[in-house]
Amino acid sequence: MKRALKLAARGKFTTSPNPAVGCVIVRNGMIIGEGYHHKAGEPHAEIMAMRSAGSSVAGATCYVTLEPCSHYGRTPPCAKALVKAGVKRVVIACGDPNPQVAGRGVKILKDAGIEVDVGLYENKALKLNRAFFKSIVKNIPYVTVKIGMSLDAKIALSDGRSKWITSEKSRQTVQKMRAASDAIITGSGTVIADNPLLNVRYDELSAKVFEKYDINKEKQPLRVVLDSRQRINPDDYVMFSQGKVLLVRPSLDSKNISEQINEHLEIFYAPCDFAGRICISAVLSELSKRQCRKVLVEAGPTLVASFLQERLADELALFVAPKVLGVNAKTAFACDEVSSLDCLKPYKILTIKRSGKDFFVRALLA
Amino acid sequence: MKRALKLAARGKFTTSPNPAVGCVIVRNGMIIGEGYHHKAGEPHAEIMAMRSAGSSVAGATCYVTLEPCSHYGRTPPCAKALVKAGVKRVVIACGDPNPQVAGRGVKILKDAGIEVDVGLYENKALKLNRAFFKSIVKNIPYVTVKIGMSLDAKIALSDGRSKWITSEKSRQTVQKMRAASDAIITGSGTVIADNPLLNVRYDELSAKVFEKYDINKEKQPLRVVLDSRQRINPDDYVMFSQGKVLLVRPSLDSKNISEQINEHLEIFYAPCDFAGRICISAVLSELSKRQCRKVLVEAGPTLVASFLQERLADELALFVAPKVLGVNAKTAFACDEVSSLDCLKPYKILTIKRSGKDFFVRALLA
Repeated sequence: MKRALKLAARGKFTTSPNPAVGCVIVRNGMIIGEGYHHKAGEPHAEIMAMRSAGSSVAGATCYVTLEPCSHYGRTPPCAKALVKAGVKRVVIACGDPNPQVAGRGVKILKDAGIEVDVGLYENKALKLNRAFFKSIVKNIPYVTVKIGMSLDAKIALSDGRSKWITSEKSRQTVQKMRAASDAIITGSGTVIADNPLLNVRYDELSAKVFEKYDINKEKQPLRVVLDSRQRINPDDYVMFSQGKVLLVRPSLDSKNISEQINEHLEIFYAPCDFAGRICISAVLSELSKRQCRKVLVEAGPTLVASFLQERLADELALFVAPKVLGVNAKTAFACDEVSSLDCLKPYKILTIKRSGKDFFVRALLA
Repeated sequence: MKRALKLAARGKFTTSPNPAVGCVIVRNGMIIGEGYHHKAGEPHAEIMAMRSAGSSVAGATCYVTLEPCSHYGRTPPCAKALVKAGVKRVVIACGDPNPQVAGRGVKILKDAGIEVDVGLYENKALKLNRAFFKSIVKNIPYVTVKIGMSLDAKIALSDGRSKWITSEKSRQTVQKMRAASDAIITGSGTVIADNPLLNVRYDELSAKVFEKYDINKEKQPLRVVLDSRQRINPDDYVMFSQGKVLLVRPSLDSKNISEQINEHLEIFYAPCDFAGRICISAVLSELSKRQCRKVLVEAGPTLVASFLQERLADELALFVAPKVLGVNAKTAFACDEVSSLDCLKPYKILTIKRSGKDFFVRALLA
């Protein structure tokens, strides 16, 4: 199963909107076949493993990191393929919470008399597809809010200068995070201040990433710009000249409609709150409909604050440079002050490590 | 030498103003004696090790974590004692930068025909006595600025509530840091807001600390209160009712004088800058004269900012709770904004680890 998990991880940059899955087939203690899901539309891990086996897998044991699927999607159901191939036993790391599967895969196997065990390295398997599972269950993408800041939680000097607060290594990791995302959300303020491309610069990824994972250099996340005050004229900003951008503007009649302007630009009209701010959860629902599982927020303090306050940020990814910019520099979090320390829900620290001269903290919504 | 360093570390809460030193004496690959410096005034590590040997140490090899002393202090010079005992070889982890020693210990040994090697595990030995070395060379204590804050670098709500931002584990570590300090510096603002005792609560230290180190429960760091605006009436605050407090007030004639008020309280009159703020480096010099090697700053944003801006904070010790208090909460660092990111000198991250639900970062002045 460890091997299957390792194989599964190879696909984590390419399988979305599908989960990353690995599979190893064993007979008499020997691996006779292995495979993983490469990308959506291509065969699932079980099929890849059976194909690689060369000979029959009848009577063998199949280790798979996720419950085999039970439904006809772009490919036929894997559970049925395993039954047909005559495997004797299937060991599954974790069940598939996808309502289209959710136990039905296991049932198909058991009904065919196959021995099934679920739960081996379950935590590792859940962790590998954390974003997929949240997204499939809640119909809303998994949201990571990324911030590069100083020790005093500042993201720029008061005049906007921010090049560079964090180290090269941290910025390289950001490229990797973008490559693993289906969409990047930013605000009009960031677009106006920085005129960013917000694309993945694959040449900045380390050689190790290319060794360890399948990488599709053509894949670029959808860039989503929230423009509550309609301040963005697409002609003025470089991001609208390449790839795809979803510009989100207030919907006057509260209907969610979208309009394709040109090959790069689509405008999505989203509902607003009373203060005229675009409703973030409506944007996330729209992204979910577009099969975005994993969203990265790279935005200024106001939009970051909205995600935090509405508890829509599943994860904080903070790159912290050991510098102090000063009290008048621009804060990373423009959150309202909490009313009490007792009712304040802390995030849960997932990992903490060095990142070049900085440190990197990942914290989850508790 | 590893054993000697481990022994040395046992004394790190008790040896100040002396360094922590360990010594192991070896003959024919067997340890025949070992010891460490327990506390100032008591015998040095080499003497303890020789005493423990029971028989003669003539012809043996002595591993000592710091260059043996060459001067008559409260105890006679160890270098001479080693010569007298007839050891054959002395292996030293690091030289003593103390101007009273600084190579003279090695010279005494070499002049007596003893083989001397310096540099084995030098980095570990330097690290063990980082504070002592800085203090003895610069005649100013080693300053650690401790801050307990949120992810957005806030130390309290705007109304002053701060109980508790950080976790119990973090607060326990603070007790350990206090126990390792000779003095704790705070400002009048913190005294007025929190009315703290700022003492070491030894019963909050973990059992592991008592196992690993010598602990003197009677030892309490000198508490130093900077009171530039003379806002403190000692009768109003609990810290003046026990132990020793040095209340620092502006000196009108720029002379550094002090006045003992009662058994608990001494007032030190320190020079001020043009804005009427007490000159921190004068206070640190005074503490150095009083043999304080290690000072912990537990203060509000303004005093913290002074230490940082004057580059008098050798080390930042940040306990960071994964919470966001909000933009109007009280900042940890009231530093002036830096004029440019290029000229900003970053701190260097020494360690980063979890601390209960928080994380703990130690960063050094680069």
